Amino acid sequence: MSKEILVVGSVAYDTVATVRETRERQLGGSASFFALAARLFAPVRAVGVVGDDFRQADLDLLSSRGVDIAGIERAQGPTFHWSGRYHADMIERDTLATELGVFADFQPALPAGWAASPYVLLANIHPALQLDVLEAVDAPRLVVLDTMNLWIETTREALLAVLARVDVLLVNDSEARLLTGETGLKEAAAAIAELGPKRVVIKKGEHGALYFGPDGVLAVPAILLPEVVDPTGAGDTFAGGFLGWLADRGVDRDAPDAEFRRAMVAGTAVASFCPQAFSVEALADLERDRVEARMAELSAMMTP
Amino acid sequence: MSKEILVVGSVAYDTVATVRETRERQLGGSASFFALAARLFAPVRAVGVVGDDFRQADLDLLSSRGVDIAGIERAQGPTFHWSGRYHADMIERDTLATELGVFADFQPALPAGWAASPYVLLANIHPALQLDVLEAVDAPRLVVLDTMNLWIETTREALLAVLARVDVLLVNDSEARLLTGETGLKEAAAAIAELGPKRVVIKKGEHGALYFGPDGVLAVPAILLPEVVDPTGAGDTFAGGFLGWLADRGVDRDAPDAEFRRAMVAGTAVASFCPQAFSVEALADLERDRVEARMAELSAMMTP
Repeated sequence: MSKEILVVGSVAYDTVATVRETRERQLGGSASFFALAARLFAPVRAVGVVGDDFRQADLDLLSSRGVDIAGIERAQGPTFHWSGRYHADMIERDTLATELGVFADFQPALPAGWAASPYVLLANIHPALQLDVLEAVDAPRLVVLDTMNLWIETTREALLAVLARVDVLLVNDSEARLLTGETGLKEAAAAIAELGPKRVVIKKGEHGALYFGPDGVLAVPAILLPEVVDPTGAGDTFAGGFLGWLADRGVDRDAPDAEFRRAMVAGTAVASFCPQAFSVEALADLERDRVEARMAELSAMMTP
Repeated sequence: MSKEILVVGSVAYDTVATVRETRERQLGGSASFFALAARLFAPVRAVGVVGDDFRQADLDLLSSRGVDIAGIERAQGPTFHWSGRYHADMIERDTLATELGVFADFQPALPAGWAASPYVLLANIHPALQLDVLEAVDAPRLVVLDTMNLWIETTREALLAVLARVDVLLVNDSEARLLTGETGLKEAAAAIAELGPKRVVIKKGEHGALYFGPDGVLAVPAILLPEVVDPTGAGDTFAGGFLGWLADRGVDRDAPDAEFRRAMVAGTAVASFCPQAFSVEALADLERDRVEARMAELSAMMTP
C-alpha cells in the first residue's frame, strides 16, 4: 500500500529574535517543518514556492532527507519572509514583518503522478489554495487541514467550503473557540465535526494537545524541556509526526480511533524536538529511535 | 489506622465578579475549599479564624459535611475578605481588595488531641504560621504545603525553613520557577526536592497538573468543562481531593509513588467541580460516586 504524503504550505525564511539571540533568514515555513517531521515515517511530497533568493542548500537539505521537492516551484522575486520576536516566556510573540514575496501569487501545481497521493496535509495557507489542492487530488485516504485565526476571521466562507471535505482539523484552543463560538473545547470539537472534520486536534503548545474523535477525548502532555530555544514551527512539526505515523500504518479515515490516539503521541514526540533549536536544526538529523524514546516518555507521563 | 487530616488556612468571605455576575461575601478561603473536598475521603479538622460578622450558617455548612470546626476560632473584628474580578477568559483576574481583618493577628491553636493528626495540610498562609502548626503536631505521616508568589518573594527564609520539613509541595508553574530560578519544570521540581519536598505538584489550572516524584513525571489533564462559572478555590479543592485520597488509603511519606500518582487523578477530579458554581456551591453536596465517575473520565482521557 502506498504511503505518500502530499503537503502544500509555505517554504519560507524566518527571522526569529529571542531574548538571547537573533537568527536571520533561516529555513522555515509550514511545509518545511511538516516535511522534515513526516519523512521520519513516510515518503513526503512538498508543494510550494520559493523565490530567486532561496538558497540551494536549503532545497538540498529537504531532498537529502527524502523529501520530494519536485512540487516546489522557484519563481522570480523574494521568498516569503516572516520575522518575529518572542517574549521572555517564549510563548507570546510579536510579528515584526510578513513579506509574502512570491507567495502572494502562489498557485499550487501538482507534478505528474502526485494526484494519486493517499495522504494530504493542507498546511496553514489561504483556504482557496487548500481547496485547489483538494480538487487536484484523486481520492485521498485521509485529509488533514491546519488553519489559523486570520482565515477564520477573513475568509470564513472559503474555509467552511474546504472544511466540509476534510477528515482532521488541527487548530489551537482560541481558534477552535473563534471558529465555533463555543467556549468549552468539547463543545467546540462537536461543532467542528458538524462542519466536516470528524476528528479534531487542539494544540496547546507547552500544555500538550487534545484529540477529539469517535471514542472521546485524549489529552497528551508536552515533553518537559529544560529550555525552549525557538518554538517556531512546533505545530507544523506536530502535524508531520501525526500524519506521518498514520501514513506509515496505512490508516484511512474510517480506521479505529485508537490509531489516531497513538498518532497524537507520535506527533507530540516529534514536535518536542523542534523548540530545542532554531529553525529546523533539531529536525534535520532526527531519527526515529529518538522519537520512539520520547513516545515511551510520554506514555510514562500518562500512566497514573 | 486513623485518617484524620489537619488543615490550617484561611476561612474567608470572597466577593467575586465575573463578566456575567457578581457574588458578595460568599464562603471562601483555602481551608473551606480544602475541607469540603477532603471530607469526601477522610475526617477533616479545620484550624482557622473568623470574625464576629461570620455567619453561623457557614460554620454549620462545614460541620454538617463532617468537617470538625473545633479549631476555627471566632475573634472580634471582620472576617478575612478577598475581592476579585475575573477577565472574560476566566483565568486572568485582578484582586480588588484583600482585607485581612481578624486574620492579621491569627495564631493557630490546636484543640486537645489534634496534635496526633496523621495528615497535615498547610494551606497558603504566612510560612511562619505554617511552621507554628508543624511544631505543634507530634509525628504526622504526611505533610503537604501550599504556598504562593507573595511568600516566595517576601518571606523566603521562613518558607525555606518550613519546606525543609514538608513531604509534598503544591505550587503553580510560575511559582515553581520563582522559587528555584529554573526555567524547566523538571529542573524546578528537582531543585525543590533539594529544599525538602521529595514530591512536587505543579498546578496549571485548565491545563491540568503535573506530579514529580521518585518514579518520574505524571501529567493529569483537567476535565473539560462546558463553562467556567468561578474558578476561585480550585487549587485548594485539588489539594483536598489529593490529600483526602492519600489519607483514606493510609499512605505515608515513604509509600510507593503509584499511590501519589493515583491521588493526582482524585485531586483533579474533585477540583473539576469547583469552577462549575460560585463559592463552595458545587462542593457542598458533592458525593464520592460523582468524583469516581470523573476519575474514570480522566483515565480514558489519558489512555492513548
